[in-house]
Amino acid sequence: MSQSNVKFLPDNLLVKVENGTSLLDAASQAGITLVSSCGGKGSCGACKVVVLAGHPRIMGRGSLTREQIAQGICLSCQTLVDGDVTVEIPPESRLQEHQILTLDSITSTTNIGMPTLLLEGRESGCIRESEEDLLLRYGRQPLATKVRLQMSEPSLTDNAADWTRLQLLLKRVLRTEGKPITIPLSVLQSLAETLRQAAWDVSVSLTSLANGYTVIRIEKGNDRPAYGLAIDIGTTTVVVLLINLMTGETVDSQGTYNQQARYGDDVIARIIYAGEAPENLGEMRQAVMETVNKLISGILTRNNIDSSDLASAVVAGNTIMTQLFLGINPRYIRLEPYIPTMNEVPSFTAREIGLQILPEGLVHIFPSVASYVGGDIVSGTLITDMAHREEITLFIDIGTNGEIVLGNKDWLVSCASSAGPCFEGGGITFGMRAMPGAIERINIDNSNLDISFDVIGNVSPKGICGSGLVDCLAKLRYNGIIDRAGNFQTDNLQFAKRLRLTEDEKSFIIAWAHQTGIKKDIVLTENDIKNLIRAKGAIYAGIRSLLTMMGMGIDMISRIIIAGGFGNYLNIGDSVQIGLLPDLPQENYQFIGNSSVKGARLALLSQDAWQEALQLGRKITCIELSVGPLFMDEFVSALFLPHTDLSLFPSVTN
Amino acid sequence: MSQSNVKFLPDNLLVKVENGTSLLDAASQAGITLVSSCGGKGSCGACKVVVLAGHPRIMGRGSLTREQIAQGICLSCQTLVDGDVTVEIPPESRLQEHQILTLDSITSTTNIGMPTLLLEGRESGCIRESEEDLLLRYGRQPLATKVRLQMSEPSLTDNAADWTRLQLLLKRVLRTEGKPITIPLSVLQSLAETLRQAAWDVSVSLTSLANGYTVIRIEKGNDRPAYGLAIDIGTTTVVVLLINLMTGETVDSQGTYNQQARYGDDVIARIIYAGEAPENLGEMRQAVMETVNKLISGILTRNNIDSSDLASAVVAGNTIMTQLFLGINPRYIRLEPYIPTMNEVPSFTAREIGLQILPEGLVHIFPSVASYVGGDIVSGTLITDMAHREEITLFIDIGTNGEIVLGNKDWLVSCASSAGPCFEGGGITFGMRAMPGAIERINIDNSNLDISFDVIGNVSPKGICGSGLVDCLAKLRYNGIIDRAGNFQTDNLQFAKRLRLTEDEKSFIIAWAHQTGIKKDIVLTENDIKNLIRAKGAIYAGIRSLLTMMGMGIDMISRIIIAGGFGNYLNIGDSVQIGLLPDLPQENYQFIGNSSVKGARLALLSQDAWQEALQLGRKITCIELSVGPLFMDEFVSALFLPHTDLSLFPSVTN
Repeated sequence: MSQSNVKFLPDNLLVKVENGTSLLDAASQAGITLVSSCGGKGSCGACKVVVLAGHPRIMGRGSLTREQIAQGICLSCQTLVDGDVTVEIPPESRLQEHQILTLDSITSTTNIGMPTLLLEGRESGCIRESEEDLLLRYGRQPLATKVRLQMSEPSLTDNAADWTRLQLLLKRVLRTEGKPITIPLSVLQSLAETLRQAAWDVSVSLTSLANGYTVIRIEKGNDRPAYGLAIDIGTTTVVVLLINLMTGETVDSQGTYNQQARYGDDVIARIIYAGEAPENLGEMRQAVMETVNKLISGILTRNNIDSSDLASAVVAGNTIMTQLFLGINPRYIRLEPYIPTMNEVPSFTAREIGLQILPEGLVHIFPSVASYVGGDIVSGTLITDMAHREEITLFIDIGTNGEIVLGNKDWLVSCASSAGPCFEGGGITFGMRAMPGAIERINIDNSNLDISFDVIGNVSPKGICGSGLVDCLAKLRYNGIIDRAGNFQTDNLQFAKRLRLTEDEKSFIIAWAHQTGIKKDIVLTENDIKNLIRAKGAIYAGIRSLLTMMGMGIDMISRIIIAGGFGNYLNIGDSVQIGLLPDLPQENYQFIGNSSVKGARLALLSQDAWQEALQLGRKITCIELSVGPLFMDEFVSALFLPHTDLSLFPSVTN
Repeated sequence: MSQSNVKFLPDNLLVKVENGTSLLDAASQAGITLVSSCGGKGSCGACKVVVLAGHPRIMGRGSLTREQIAQGICLSCQTLVDGDVTVEIPPESRLQEHQILTLDSITSTTNIGMPTLLLEGRESGCIRESEEDLLLRYGRQPLATKVRLQMSEPSLTDNAADWTRLQLLLKRVLRTEGKPITIPLSVLQSLAETLRQAAWDVSVSLTSLANGYTVIRIEKGNDRPAYGLAIDIGTTTVVVLLINLMTGETVDSQGTYNQQARYGDDVIARIIYAGEAPENLGEMRQAVMETVNKLISGILTRNNIDSSDLASAVVAGNTIMTQLFLGINPRYIRLEPYIPTMNEVPSFTAREIGLQILPEGLVHIFPSVASYVGGDIVSGTLITDMAHREEITLFIDIGTNGEIVLGNKDWLVSCASSAGPCFEGGGITFGMRAMPGAIERINIDNSNLDISFDVIGNVSPKGICGSGLVDCLAKLRYNGIIDRAGNFQTDNLQFAKRLRLTEDEKSFIIAWAHQTGIKKDIVLTENDIKNLIRAKGAIYAGIRSLLTMMGMGIDMISRIIIAGGFGNYLNIGDSVQIGLLPDLPQENYQFIGNSSVKGARLALLSQDAWQEALQLGRKITCIELSVGPLFMDEFVSALFLPHTDLSLFPSVTN
C-alpha cells in the first residue's frame, strides 16, 4: 500500500501514513489526541478538522452543516488519507496535553505535601478529621515495605540456607506472627549472589498483606525509601500519586487524559468498541496502560527514582475501566442482565499486568460493587469514612455517571444514574472540561443586562465547563430567560439580542465571538439545556430513589459529600437552584475532590484500610435503578427546574 | 564460520555443524548422548569415539594409551570438527536412549497399576502397610483437583458478578471453610466468555493447598479427570509418573537419563560447570527441563491426554538438581561453608518454571534438609513412614551419594557420605548402569574354578553394574582372591590365569573377551576394588557415625530400608560380607526402589502428606560429616573387608 504525508497545523507536525488511514488515527500517530466522544463513529462531531490542502476521501459528514462543509471542515474519523494532505486542528477539537498541569487543581491534589480532607462531623461536634487522622486510626502499615537487614554471615556451624537465614531474620524484624513469607522465583534465583555481593548488608522490599509477606526485591543495603503509587483510572482522566511508603508523604502527583478516550468518551462507547473486533480489547488495554506508564515514567524522571523503587500500586477505577485495564472484555456489562466479570479483584503482580513498577510488586485493585458502581466509588466511600459513622452521609461522585452512596455504619446503599457526560462538557455544544479557557461562572448584570464571566486561567473563553453550565442554567432560570421546563421564554424581550432563533434550533449567546478565543459566539442551545436538565434530573432522581427505598426523607441526611472533577468548583446555591442537589443548608455540604485517588492512597498506606475497602465492596448494596418504576417516576418529576414538587426546594424562590 | 558434515556410525546419522564444534556436542546435536562423566573436561576418558575418516582437530588426549591413539580412538570432548568427518561410537561410550524402557525395572515402578510398597513393622506386629494404606491414613486430598459445576444463569434479580457466582458455588461444593479462593489473571480474562460458551456447565480445575484455593482452568463441562505428575529428578535419571488425581491411579510411568549428565556425571562436576560461564547455568537448566518435558510429552501421547489436563506436579530431587531445575546457581554449595540458596522451596506456577503442564498449575518441590541431603531424601523419608513409628528405622538411599536417615517418631538425623558413583558404575573400569548387558551377579565354581555370570537382559555382557560389583567383591574376598585390604593375593595360584599383572596395574578377568559383547576382557582392577572399598566404607562409616552420635548400637535398628537405583537387586548377604551394610538379619531389610518418586506421588495425592513433607524438611537434622574426627575415624576403620572391627560382623566367617 502506498503512503502519504499528512501535515498537521498549527503544530506543523508531519507524519507518513498508509493511504486509507483516518485523519483521526494519523493525528494520533503525530501525537495529537483529538476529542472523539463517539469512538470514531462519525456521530458526535467532536473531531472536526479543516482540510487546507489535498483531497482526502470523505466517508461521511455526520451532522456537519453545509456552511461547515464549504469551509473545508470534515470529521477526522470519517476522512481517510488518499495522497498528501494538510490539516488544521481547531483548538476545540483537541485534547490538549500541555494543559494537564492544571489537573492538580482539578483533582484537588497538591504537588508537594499532603492534601488535606476536611470532614466535618455533625454528630461528633464538628470534629475536623483529616486524611492523616483517618490514616492514624487505621494504622500506617503500607501494602509494601522495605527493611534494611544486617545479616550474620553463614559458617560451618551456622549453615542455614540463604533463604532460611533471610526468613528467620525477617520474621524477627517484622514480627510476622506466624504469617508465611514467600519469594518469587526471579528473586530467589539471584538471592545467593546478591547477599554475598552486598556482604550480608541488604535492603529487602516486601509486599505485606493480611495473609502473609512476599519478598519482591533484595538489593545492597541502602536507605532509599520504597515508594508506592495511588492511581485513579477515570474514563476521562488518569491521576497518579507518588507516595513515600516509609513516611506516608505524597511526593508528587500527576494527571493526564486517558488515551483510551479516543475509542469513545463514555464507558458505553468503550464497551462497544472493545466488542467490535478481537484486537480492539488489546488496543484499549494498551491505551490505558500507556497512559499510566507514561505518567509513571514522568514521575520517575521528575523525582529521580527508578521504577524498581516502586514497590506497590493501588488502582481505583470504575468497573469498565478496571476490566479494560486488566484486558478483560466488558461486553457483558452492557448486555442484560449486565454482569461484570468480577467485583473483587485478586492482587496481581505488576509483571502480570504490565504496569511499569517493580515487576514482582503487587498491584491492588479496588473492588467494585456492581457494573456501574465501581472501585472508584468504593475508594471514595472509604475516604468519606461514612461506614464508620452514626450519622447518615450522602456521597455523590459526579463524573460521566453520577454515582451515589447513602448510608452509615449500619448500612450502605448505592446506585448509578446515567447522568451522561454533560457535566464534563460532553454532549453540550460548547461544553468543555474544566481547563484554561472554560467559563466556570457567569454574572448577569440586571442594570445593563450585560453578561460577564469567570474563565479558568483568565484567558479568552473557548467553552463552558460543568460548573459553568450549572451556573448558566441557574442564572438563565433566575432571570426568566428559560421557564421551569427549560424552554426559552421568547416573550422575555430583555435579552432578545442574545436569543438567536433559527429554523433548526434556539440558542442563547453567553459570549460574543469577539470576546472568545475561538472567534465564534459561545452559546447554550435549547437542546443543551434539555440535556443538562436530564442530567441533573437523573442525579436528583437517583438520590431520591435511594432515600425512598430506605424510607427516608432528605432532612435525615447529615452530610453531603461531593466528589468528582468539577466538585470543588460547583456552586451549591446554583446546584440547589436547578434541582441538581438536595435543598439542604450549605454547611452540610463538603467537597472532596478526587476521592478515588485519595482512597487509593489511604489503602496503599494501611493494610487495615485495604481490608476495609474489600469489606466495603461486599457491604455496599447496589440498587439497580432500571428495575421497577421507582426511578423513572422520580426522574420524570425531576425534569423541571428545580422539580415538579416545589416543596422539596423551599429555598428556591422562583 | 564454515560448516562441516559429521557422520556417526553405526547409527549412520549425519549432522552439519560449525567447524570448531566438539564431537561430543556434534553427537548431542545428532541426538546421541555420550557418557561424559567429567563434563567434557577430557579427564574421565568416557566419551571415546573412533575417527574412521577425516581429520578433526585434537585438543587433548587425556589418558588414552598409545595403542588406542593408533586405533584412531579420541576423546569426543577434546576433538573439534575441522572438515567432514566420520566417527564410530563404541557401545560403552553411549548413554543408550533405547534402553530407557528397562527403567521400569530399575525404578521399581510399573507401567500400569499401583506399585506396592511393603513396609513391615516389627513393633506393630508385622503389619503390611502398602502405599495405599499410607495414603488412606493421610487422606486423599490431592494438591490439585477438578470439579464439574452446573451454575445458575445470572438474571436481573440474581446479578452477581461471574467470579463472585463461581466463588460462591465453589465454596459450597468444596466446603472451603473460609479459605480464600483466588484466580490468576489469564483465567479471569476469559472467564465471562467461557462460562457463557459452556452454557454455565463448566469443569473447574483448582490447586488446593492448606492456605487456600486457586482456580487454574475453566473449561466446558466434561468428565475427563485432572492428572498430576510425580517427578523424580535424579543426577543420572529422571522418572515421571502420571497420576489420575481423581482416582489416585498411577496411569503411566516413564524414565530416561538426565540430559544434564553431559555436563558431568556427578553433582560436583555439574556445580563446577554451572559456575564456569554465565550461560552455563541456563544451558543446564534447559537440559533437565527438556529431559522432563520430553518425558511428559511422551506420556501425553501414549495416554492421549493434553498438557492442560496436567494440573499439578510434585518434584523431588537432591539440592543441586533442585537448584539447577529452577535456574538457581548452586555454586555456593561447593564453597565453604557449603550453603544452598534454599531448603524449603515456594510453590511456583508451571509457567514460571517452564514445565509443560497447565501453565497456571502449581509445581511443588520437596524441601531439602541441607546441601547434600535433598528433597529426594525427604520424599523417601515420607514414604518410609519412619517419622510416625516408635521403632528405629535406618533409611539408606544409595546412588551417587549415599544418603542416610536414622530415627523414629521422636527424632530424625541424616547425613550424606560421598560414596561416589561406583555403585552406579562410575569410576570403575567396566562399571555400567543396571541395564541390558550388565553383569549383576557372578558365580565362582569351586570345582573347576570357572566363573559364570547373570547378565541383565540375558545378552552378552558389556560391563558390571552396582549389584554385580558388590557381588564380585564379596566373591573375590570369599575365594581368597583378594585380602581384607582389597589387594590381590598373588600367591593364590588357583586363579592365576585370570589374574593379569602389568606394570601399571593388576586386574582380575571376570569375563573373557570372547564371552562379551564388547570383544574385550571385562576385568576388575585393583584400583576398581580400592574404589569400591572406599565407597562401601563411606556408607558404612556414615551409618556408624549417626549411630554413635545418637549413642546407639547397630542392634537397636529395627528396620533397614534400602532405596536407590540398584536397591532391588542388591544381595544383602554380599553387602554384609563386604561391610557395606550392617550385619543384621535379612528380615530386617526392605527394598523400596525409587522412594523419591513414590514420596512425590503420595504428596501429590494428599495435602496432609505434603504438609508432612514440609515438616520433615525442618525436622530432620543433618549431621555434617566433615566437621570433627568422628566420620574420618569410622571411615578408616571401614576400609577393610568387611571392617577393622570384626566383632561388628559376626556372621562374616572369613
